[in-house]
Parts: sequence; structure tokens; C-alpha cells
Amino acid sequence: MGSSTTNQTLTEEERAHILPLLRNAQWVEVVGRDAIYKEFIFKDFNQAFGFMSRVALHAEKLNHHPEWFNVYNKVQITLSTHDCGGLSQRDISLATLIDQASLM
Amino acid sequence: MGSSTTNQTLTEEERAHILPLLRNAQWVEVVGRDAIYKEFIFKDFNQAFGFMSRVALHAEKLNHHPEWFNVYNKVQITLSTHDCGGLSQRDISLATLIDQASLM
Repeated sequence: MGSSTTNQTLTEEERAHILPLLRNAQWVEVVGRDAIYKEFIFKDFNQAFGFMSRVALHAEKLNHHPEWFNVYNKVQITLSTHDCGGLSQRDISLATLIDQASLM
Repeated sequence: MGSSTTNQTLTEEERAHILPLLRNAQWVEVVGRDAIYKEFIFKDFNQAFGFMSRVALHAEKLNHHPEWFNVYNKVQITLSTHDCGGLSQRDISLATLIDQASLM
């Protein structure tokens, strides 16, 4: 791992290590923006909003928040760090927690 | 009021009555789509997600769900009824509950 702190954009070395792992987990890089995106589909709104509530608690604890859209059973999430204008370790941490929350 | 049931698009008579009230409450008609939209700004994510949680409970009870986007303290909500492809009484009911939830 590089020496970047959590609030700086990922180094090239970090990207080479982390982005393949994120792609394997179905996160995609956003075109024209240093951000990652993933869509989650649940059984119904109850399941989708339960997931969002778990993510909200993680986000608040990390003090790092998603950009997200929901309609019924679908949740679309974009992660990027506004403070540095791109992907940081905080996005990677939140992505990991989001993936865990989606499996509960 | 007209004779439409909650799952049918609003009649012209209903629109003439209801849309001015919605505009007064800062709901706007979506261009190119029979839907209404409003943006809510809160102090922080905690307040925004608290609002979303209250709306989620109303939505589930009504079995009528918003299309919504959130980033940090901002919540953007679009209401339309997929079953009838446009605005119905259910959207008006949900809009009213959403406005009440935003004031708590």
C-alpha cells in the first residue's frame, strides 16, 4: 500500500491493487469521473430500505456518505470523496461495508 | 373531487384543484413526464436520513414508494404511479406525508 492518508485520492499503486478487487465485486468505474458505482436489487422495498439503513449507520460512523438513488427494490450507489475530488481509501472502506450489508 | 380511484391518473378536474396546492408547497411538475419533484435540504446526513426513514415507513404503509436520490444533507424526491404511468391520488397522499415528515 502507498502512503496516502484516507482523505487523499488513491495512488496509482493503490489503484492497481484495489480496482481489480472492486471489479470482481461488480463495482464499476464511472465514466468521466473518479468514482465507483454499483447497483443492488432486492426482493422488495422493505429489503432495499433495510439495506440502506445498515449502510447509513456505517456511513455516519465513517463520516463518509454515499450518493445513492432508490426506487422500490433497486438501490444505485456512487462513491467518491468530495474533499479530494476522487476515489480515496474511505470509498474503498465504505464499498466493503456496503457489500457486507447487502448480504444480510 | 372526481371519481378516480387511487390507482388511476388524476382527472383534469382533480389536477386543477391539486396542482396549485402542490406548487405552493414547492413541488414542481417534471418536464416530459407526469410526475412531481421536490428537493429537501437538511442540516446534515443524520437529519436527511431520519427524514428518509420516516418517509420509508409511510411509503411501505401506503404500498406506494418514492423515487429518491440522497447525497449527504440533500434528498431529491420524484413521485409518480408506475401502475397508471402518471400522477394519481397516491402520489398526492405520499407528497402530503413527505411534507409533514420533513418538518419533524
